[in-house]
Amino acid sequence: MKEYKLPKGFLVSGVYSAVKRKRKDLALFYSKVPCRTAALFTKNRVKAAPLILAIRQFKKNSLFRAVIVNSGNANCMTGQRGIRDAERMVKETAKALGVRKDTVLVSSTGIIGQFMPIEKIVGNIERLVKKLSENSLDAAAEGIMTTDRFKKILTKEFIVGGKKITITGVAKGAGMIKPDMATMLCYILTDADITEKALKKALAGAARVSFNAITVDGDMSTNDTVIIMANGEAANKNIKEKGADFEIFQKNLDELSKNLAKMVVRDGEGATKFIEVIVKGGKSFDSAKKAANAIAESVLVKCAALGGDPNWGRIASSLGASGVVFDPDKLEIILDGVTFVKNGAFLPPKEKSNMVFKGNDILIEVNLYSGKKNATVFTCDISKKYIELNAHYTT
Amino acid sequence: MKEYKLPKGFLVSGVYSAVKRKRKDLALFYSKVPCRTAALFTKNRVKAAPLILAIRQFKKNSLFRAVIVNSGNANCMTGQRGIRDAERMVKETAKALGVRKDTVLVSSTGIIGQFMPIEKIVGNIERLVKKLSENSLDAAAEGIMTTDRFKKILTKEFIVGGKKITITGVAKGAGMIKPDMATMLCYILTDADITEKALKKALAGAARVSFNAITVDGDMSTNDTVIIMANGEAANKNIKEKGADFEIFQKNLDELSKNLAKMVVRDGEGATKFIEVIVKGGKSFDSAKKAANAIAESVLVKCAALGGDPNWGRIASSLGASGVVFDPDKLEIILDGVTFVKNGAFLPPKEKSNMVFKGNDILIEVNLYSGKKNATVFTCDISKKYIELNAHYTT
Repeated sequence: MKEYKLPKGFLVSGVYSAVKRKRKDLALFYSKVPCRTAALFTKNRVKAAPLILAIRQFKKNSLFRAVIVNSGNANCMTGQRGIRDAERMVKETAKALGVRKDTVLVSSTGIIGQFMPIEKIVGNIERLVKKLSENSLDAAAEGIMTTDRFKKILTKEFIVGGKKITITGVAKGAGMIKPDMATMLCYILTDADITEKALKKALAGAARVSFNAITVDGDMSTNDTVIIMANGEAANKNIKEKGADFEIFQKNLDELSKNLAKMVVRDGEGATKFIEVIVKGGKSFDSAKKAANAIAESVLVKCAALGGDPNWGRIASSLGASGVVFDPDKLEIILDGVTFVKNGAFLPPKEKSNMVFKGNDILIEVNLYSGKKNATVFTCDISKKYIELNAHYTT
Repeated sequence: MKEYKLPKGFLVSGVYSAVKRKRKDLALFYSKVPCRTAALFTKNRVKAAPLILAIRQFKKNSLFRAVIVNSGNANCMTGQRGIRDAERMVKETAKALGVRKDTVLVSSTGIIGQFMPIEKIVGNIERLVKKLSENSLDAAAEGIMTTDRFKKILTKEFIVGGKKITITGVAKGAGMIKPDMATMLCYILTDADITEKALKKALAGAARVSFNAITVDGDMSTNDTVIIMANGEAANKNIKEKGADFEIFQKNLDELSKNLAKMVVRDGEGATKFIEVIVKGGKSFDSAKKAANAIAESVLVKCAALGGDPNWGRIASSLGASGVVFDPDKLEIILDGVTFVKNGAFLPPKEKSNMVFKGNDILIEVNLYSGKKNATVFTCDISKKYIELNAHYTT
């Protein structure tokens, strides 16, 4: 039995259009009826053409029917021609679907700085539309992948006011993953009936504990996008931005998003270990988060994780260099449940110490004792495979 | 003929005390007469014991005679016992030299979070003092090395008011190198007669274009220290903090420091390529520097350098993610002299494009066109060797 399925009223597809060498490289997410839609885009100052276009579209409209996504080419730094290519993808998709073009969004991922092989893509849109089905989640997930090793699809089902609601998310990740922005491509489809305001609030809340709490290599992409579409086909009582119904929706969206985000980290380029960094006792959430990111993004800490070496000195050093204010003499560092540093000084090794950092899942807990706020960041180690993948990822 | 020698009135030595497995691990820098001394220490909130001690010493005194340095153990996060160990090194060195203990400084580099093998070190101090000579720069340079592949020693000679002045610097680097702080261990000895104020000013000025303009892996060490000692034995007219004499001194110190800093980058752990990043057109020096650092610290850019791949998309992306304000539509990127991006869009590949990033020295030039300030940062690529070195660098 598959663990995922589409919510009511959605159809998806994925095809090969020869933009990439081997795998499927086009995907389509489509709703039979208009969807309330919310989105998060990269905070990178350099934004790819599809994002520039989408941001314009969202200023005029929040009801959408479809998103077309291509992988293999990011359509970034492609100037006015890039914008025209993105517009053409929207127009041709709208035409093939028989919907208004202001209801179609486009995303791209892949190489930066090459013009889109637009004829190849456009030439496959009709086929992409014809392939739309309730059973093509795998094909759509493959269509958005770049260096991902596995597909990232999850479904949550839950009851709101007696009606079953389904949320399904499809994500891609791998490299260029950095916290505090929309950090990857992710399309979340739900049949919930929910107001636009509530949908926006729920997505922002979910992103904080998921997409914005992960880092692979500290690099923020020019194309990162998270889109959530709600078509109301579950026929539940319209969810407002407050109350028990919203809380159930938020909780489930949080879980789905967090698990998708974790899948992205586990599939970080060349990753061999999954690392959870928890910083407690921060003066504010932001300072705890900054401290957690400093640890998660330290190449030396990542190397220590790879080597199975609980090198807490590097953790302490990255904290000290983070700019976060704390008293080094109070610092506490606990690795895989074993306390290595207390009151700023290291403790004699314990019996269990030699097991620390040896597993595939690593837990780094730090207490700054400078306040009461906590933050969690998920990351992975860095391996020779990462270097290999990124030293020769074309131009 | 050697390219380096000691300034007048200095003696140095280096011996093996079994703190490290193979190489010499103790060094001593000594002046026959008291030196005006200035220092820069890491901005890391977590500071090793010798730095805590040295900062205290500088509050009381600026005339020093000697610095003892050990490699192999950083004496960091070692609590009160660490401070006592550092004090003991100072005391025993002063005793063996027959000087006052408030004129002796100590530095340590190596593993964080292990108590010092203090008896081994102390047991070798007399021998270290006996070995002091005018011809032991190589031994002293070896004594401060950790994972460095080569010794870093440079000498500058120049004339001030008819007197020959010599400046000699000895540095170590390798990993944990990050800009905007004292970024490594470096001991600069000069026979110039110069005021304390002028010496401080000159060191700060030199650091800005050298030690604070390099990055290997973005990690800032807990132990980084730059110390300059001036003993006045050149018998020149005392250099004040303004005027032609100061300018000559500053220029030569800048060059010496910059070249030592570049040696540190070239010897970055696992480095195969030297990268110079120049950002022009910043609104301020700080924003240009921030942009340059964002490029220099991007693991993806470093991978591209390793792979000989002029992936300017990653450069643009790291700039966009840096937080520095600029108009993406004005961005210009020139790699090894070939313009790849103009007015924010990429240009068709040129004939010379296939030679770009293929050499051992790489030049990345960016113009943000948002102001008139420039900044330069030196860095290196990241290789599998870096991962290997750092995945298993003990605990």
